[in-house]
Amino acid sequence: MAVALLFLCFLVLATTTSDAVIAHSDPQIIQLLRPRAGVAGHPDSEINCLSWRLAVETNNIRNWDLVPETCEDYVGNYMLGKQYRLDCEAVADIAIEYAENLTIPDDGKSIWVFDIDETAFSNLPYYARPSVGFGAKKYNSTAFGEYIQEADVPALPASLRLYRNLVKLGIKSVFLTGSSERYREAREENLKKVGYYTWEKLILKPISEKGTSSVYFKSKERTKLVNEGYRIVGNIGDQWSDIIGTNVGNRTFKLPDPMYYVG
Amino acid sequence: MAVALLFLCFLVLATTTSDAVIAHSDPQIIQLLRPRAGVAGHPDSEINCLSWRLAVETNNIRNWDLVPETCEDYVGNYMLGKQYRLDCEAVADIAIEYAENLTIPDDGKSIWVFDIDETAFSNLPYYARPSVGFGAKKYNSTAFGEYIQEADVPALPASLRLYRNLVKLGIKSVFLTGSSERYREAREENLKKVGYYTWEKLILKPISEKGTSSVYFKSKERTKLVNEGYRIVGNIGDQWSDIIGTNVGNRTFKLPDPMYYVG
Repeated sequence: MAVALLFLCFLVLATTTSDAVIAHSDPQIIQLLRPRAGVAGHPDSEINCLSWRLAVETNNIRNWDLVPETCEDYVGNYMLGKQYRLDCEAVADIAIEYAENLTIPDDGKSIWVFDIDETAFSNLPYYARPSVGFGAKKYNSTAFGEYIQEADVPALPASLRLYRNLVKLGIKSVFLTGSSERYREAREENLKKVGYYTWEKLILKPISEKGTSSVYFKSKERTKLVNEGYRIVGNIGDQWSDIIGTNVGNRTFKLPDPMYYVG
Repeated sequence: MAVALLFLCFLVLATTTSDAVIAHSDPQIIQLLRPRAGVAGHPDSEINCLSWRLAVETNNIRNWDLVPETCEDYVGNYMLGKQYRLDCEAVADIAIEYAENLTIPDDGKSIWVFDIDETAFSNLPYYARPSVGFGAKKYNSTAFGEYIQEADVPALPASLRLYRNLVKLGIKSVFLTGSSERYREAREENLKKVGYYTWEKLILKPISEKGTSSVYFKSKERTKLVNEGYRIVGNIGDQWSDIIGTNVGNRTFKLPDPMYYVG
């Protein structure tokens, strides 16, 4: 009997990979909305990792440097668990539904802007390294550059699915990334290797622009596209700097990324 | 022994009010990032309520009408549980930290724009009614109007805390709401009753503007404020339509609201 119960405990815990379990939990835990005394109501002194992630995803926390140390495990488990995948697939579902309802003129000028890192690609094999700690450890541009140069970064499955649907719909893709022009060859090889076979443009950041903000650089490049007669029907990225600024496109889509901030 | 284990089970479940538990769960549940076959990888056919909420909070899903029926329990438990409170308090923490680091000129022209419903106030007593189902049931403007007229809506504690800090810092508050001018008296009485004792302006939607979008109305009113010489140093709301458009302010803050959408 005891063993059976222990097994039940494990079964329940093993399925508790997301907060979906809230919906089924004991109603006694429901609390009325009223101010609380003490630390719980004033969480200045402690970080709630779910609240931190929501604040990041809604652009409330800006210019942050590292994942809070206390949230490394939380972010790691989110990124490696099923919820990150489901969250990305939900964004793709919404984007595909939107694209399918567009009227696309036959002039080849309808484009979709994709960011690359944590959008077209997933750098989880890099970010899961103990030395990186899902963004909780200091960023090492040399190590990340070496990883990119290997041109072996996997696709983010949800974005690849969106891309394939856009191809079918006659919407061309433009990859617009803040990563350096020096990685052009590696990125091209990598995109093709994982299934992004064709694109209208692949825009990387010129070495001369090193240091300019992502919002500035991406706005400028999107404006050039519009001036060339393209219609940006959609724009997807994991950073708010991918989808704010000028000429952001008719509709923007934010993928989750609690691992790093690019302003 | 069996009873002790059962108690342990309940203890564990009772504390599982959020997905913070992920960080402590069995490492065997971690999944590598690869496309999945079948329904799990293509959740078109079923709604994952966490993904739905994240998509709402990041402005990926727009113009939605009702909370999906399958997510009523999830949204209800989120709104009544501790996570909603913590998420709101985190937003207030970030906003207060931002405000405290501002240099406020002594001209009385620095203002903070507050939305009212689900921002200054929490309408949970209304939304928790079975007939409302946390936004899963069809909106009833008559019933909601009657509720507002009672002028007995509680404050959202996190927003009241932000408001009190702004008063101390010499930043004046402007309440800008899409709710109708016809409720001015009730709203004024209600604001004062719960602790919002003073404000620079209380802007409600004129009856003549019924039907204009919130983005349009709020942008226009904020532009008037700027033209009157005010500096909008901060702007907080639960809807994206509160914080997009023109003259949104130097910094915007998005409070959670998975119960309804105002475009």
